[in-house]
Amino acid sequence: MNIDMIDAAADRLNGHARRTPLLSSPFLDELTGRRILIKAECLQHTGSFKFRGAWSALSALTDAQRKSGVIAFSSGNHAQGVALAARMHGAPAVIVMPSNAPAVKIANTRALGGEVVLYDRETESREDIGAALAQERGLTLVRPYDDPQVIAGQGTVGLEIAVQAAELGVTDAEVLVCCGGGGLTSGVALALEARAPGMRVHPCEPQGFDDVARSLSSDEIQRNPSQTGSICDAIVTPAPGDLTFPIMQRLCGPGYVVSDDDCLHAMAQAFQRLRIVVEPGGAAAMAAALTQSKADTVIAVATGGNVDQAMFTRALETLT
Amino acid sequence: MNIDMIDAAADRLNGHARRTPLLSSPFLDELTGRRILIKAECLQHTGSFKFRGAWSALSALTDAQRKSGVIAFSSGNHAQGVALAARMHGAPAVIVMPSNAPAVKIANTRALGGEVVLYDRETESREDIGAALAQERGLTLVRPYDDPQVIAGQGTVGLEIAVQAAELGVTDAEVLVCCGGGGLTSGVALALEARAPGMRVHPCEPQGFDDVARSLSSDEIQRNPSQTGSICDAIVTPAPGDLTFPIMQRLCGPGYVVSDDDCLHAMAQAFQRLRIVVEPGGAAAMAAALTQSKADTVIAVATGGNVDQAMFTRALETLT
Repeated sequence: MNIDMIDAAADRLNGHARRTPLLSSPFLDELTGRRILIKAECLQHTGSFKFRGAWSALSALTDAQRKSGVIAFSSGNHAQGVALAARMHGAPAVIVMPSNAPAVKIANTRALGGEVVLYDRETESREDIGAALAQERGLTLVRPYDDPQVIAGQGTVGLEIAVQAAELGVTDAEVLVCCGGGGLTSGVALALEARAPGMRVHPCEPQGFDDVARSLSSDEIQRNPSQTGSICDAIVTPAPGDLTFPIMQRLCGPGYVVSDDDCLHAMAQAFQRLRIVVEPGGAAAMAAALTQSKADTVIAVATGGNVDQAMFTRALETLT
Repeated sequence: MNIDMIDAAADRLNGHARRTPLLSSPFLDELTGRRILIKAECLQHTGSFKFRGAWSALSALTDAQRKSGVIAFSSGNHAQGVALAARMHGAPAVIVMPSNAPAVKIANTRALGGEVVLYDRETESREDIGAALAQERGLTLVRPYDDPQVIAGQGTVGLEIAVQAAELGVTDAEVLVCCGGGGLTSGVALALEARAPGMRVHPCEPQGFDDVARSLSSDEIQRNPSQTGSICDAIVTPAPGDLTFPIMQRLCGPGYVVSDDDCLHAMAQAFQRLRIVVEPGGAAAMAAALTQSKADTVIAVATGGNVDQAMFTRALETLT
């Protein structure tokens, strides 16, 4: 993994992925006493940064691989990203999703042309199911994070942050990234190492699912005891990836850990002050920016906005 | 008023106003059988396009005028735009607002440094109050729409639409604009006349407050019988402006008229499919795009996103 792969991915994404805005509000700056900048990846196609990695992976396949099709396993955002990127490439896509994923994510994945296969998150391994289906049908597996082309695609978020921050005169900052398996976190860190070395990336995770923060502080891969029980479903994964962890070890940390309430409050601030819709797992970095970071300038990635109206209403109820 | 004034305003706004994204969703295209593009001006500074006209007006003043300060009267979005643009120019700002404006808009205007003067929308004339205060304190009045520099600033939305649509291969389209006094509508129409002559602008208004649609169809200025009773407070004005109406007469129409329910549904679609927060009056054009336009390609401006959580929750409740 290196910056050249991210630059190449950026070339392939050009004209297909959105260059999402870097938003700010004087109210958030006043609230925190810091300069807060929010990279609104919830405005990306399919409502999350995952479209970038999916497009990067699909566009790096051979014609024969694309014709046979792809398979992905995902709690939802990677699923939608792969389904749309596959459809835009004319490739069939099978998506393995947990049966308890938000209904809107399952429905959207199907509507985007994905063939959805459901599994039980508590008792079955999505990796095993994915591998078996891939072999059976000749599908290429598009991993959610532990894949060089996926990491390269997510890293284009970092390229954009470097340019957009520089336009605002910002070269030194903490860059907070909502972190599941670490694909976005490691990709952004690699991009910033090359293009904005004054910025340091900190992964942000929900309480009880802070495998990356614990892995970074203990210098070895730690796993989460459970994979259910957080409202931040989008960033709950078993453990950091074999490819992503060494990159994060070298470039990122320490990690921030936020509560569900912190995320709901951040969603409400994003609604009121930035007019964007952010899902709980996509709000973890903004939550850390509002409650924990001590840096003068904080850039937080709002990674996704696929949220049911019931959960969003719950977030709005935190506004007094 | 001409395209040169809009280009000059664009130069003054460069680096200060946001270039807001032109969003789309395969779900909205499928829902309507048309190509739907949404210009997300709710992501502009202060949450509406009004910042553009305010910046254009403030930046066109003399230093002496800026030092004395400005005054504006507004239901809220123009107020916030002028307050922030004035603060960024180091100019004092007095804002005359209706006492029944949404609380969040009044609070935000004050927090952005504006001195708020309240008046009764039913019994008092904001124009009279504004004129008296302006004379008394030597303030320059920044009109919400009937001012050449304000129209020029709003017209920069049209310049961006022309460029962003061309990048997508779109040169022919209906361009739907939420319309109060016509500043944005006329400015966008002038910009598109010069830069995208295959596009035609249609003003969009709430039922019962369709003064512009009636004025265009009768070829003379018509007034609204009331100025209260719509949830679309941001685009309820007495009548089209003396400057804006002739421009709209020449370039725009016919107007679309939408119901409150249409706007609430459009807000819900914007939440679910585009992950942006739109207020009722800012959703009128998107509502017309979803329910009334028959064009193959429809570009709707989502003009603002300053909405209380109670009203937003009401919109979300329309999702089944």
